[in-house]
Amino acid sequence: MSGQGEQERCFEVRAIGRVESPLTERAGAPRQGDEGGPEAWLVFDAPVERGLRDLTAGQEVLLLTWLDRADREVLAVHPRGDRSRPETGVFATRSPDRPNPIGLHRVTVLAVDGLRLRVGGLEAIDGTPVLDVKPVLPGVGER
Amino acid sequence: MSGQGEQERCFEVRAIGRVESPLTERAGAPRQGDEGGPEAWLVFDAPVERGLRDLTAGQEVLLLTWLDRADREVLAVHPRGDRSRPETGVFATRSPDRPNPIGLHRVTVLAVDGLRLRVGGLEAIDGTPVLDVKPVLPGVGER
Repeated sequence: MSGQGEQERCFEVRAIGRVESPLTERAGAPRQGDEGGPEAWLVFDAPVERGLRDLTAGQEVLLLTWLDRADREVLAVHPRGDRSRPETGVFATRSPDRPNPIGLHRVTVLAVDGLRLRVGGLEAIDGTPVLDVKPVLPGVGER
Repeated sequence: MSGQGEQERCFEVRAIGRVESPLTERAGAPRQGDEGGPEAWLVFDAPVERGLRDLTAGQEVLLLTWLDRADREVLAVHPRGDRSRPETGVFATRSPDRPNPIGLHRVTVLAVDGLRLRVGGLEAIDGTPVLDVKPVLPGVGER
């Protein structure tokens, strides 16, 4: 890894809120939000309130979370935990176990209540730290 | 923020590689990869090689990067830097300046050469740290 010695390699992400969900165990959670993920609240911390002000009900957004129960040493998995499927490199899978366990969830905003956002179809479990929210990009001409 | 005092709030992400791109300055970069982002190499570190093995040319993937030149204190911006547009909360924009500056890029894998992946349409600048690669999810029945 010559030439990278002087470059910064580690960075700190900070939770800006938490997921409040009826899902409390990873074993019981659907593997993706469109496979039966329930409605959940995203509860944001007061310091980021100004960043939320243009999110409205009906919008589709990408939610980034920190999957804090993940195993970061894993580099290959049997997809969807199915041992009959061949072991696959994690970067070709959506396994939560991976070197940087950042969860990416496409959800619909159902309601906005101050620091709380109600969203539909979220497979993340209760207490999962929220890192970011981004809009789903419209077509190039509408940006 | 009662009740959150005992929960962990900060987490460490680690670069697993770097972008090698002809784009060297943020000012010259397109705002999104589909607005003229050039081809680029993703150069991964040897320890994650096993995680890459099922990525193949032709695949569409989501690349997560750390936008290391971002201003993390920003909570509202004029979209696309256009001062005639009203100031908007960052979570309703794709501004790189935001509390956790994680870049999300949809790119096509053009070639794979060991630890190097050639991708098309990437607006991230040279040297940007790579955090993760995830497949674009197929329809529910094909997973």
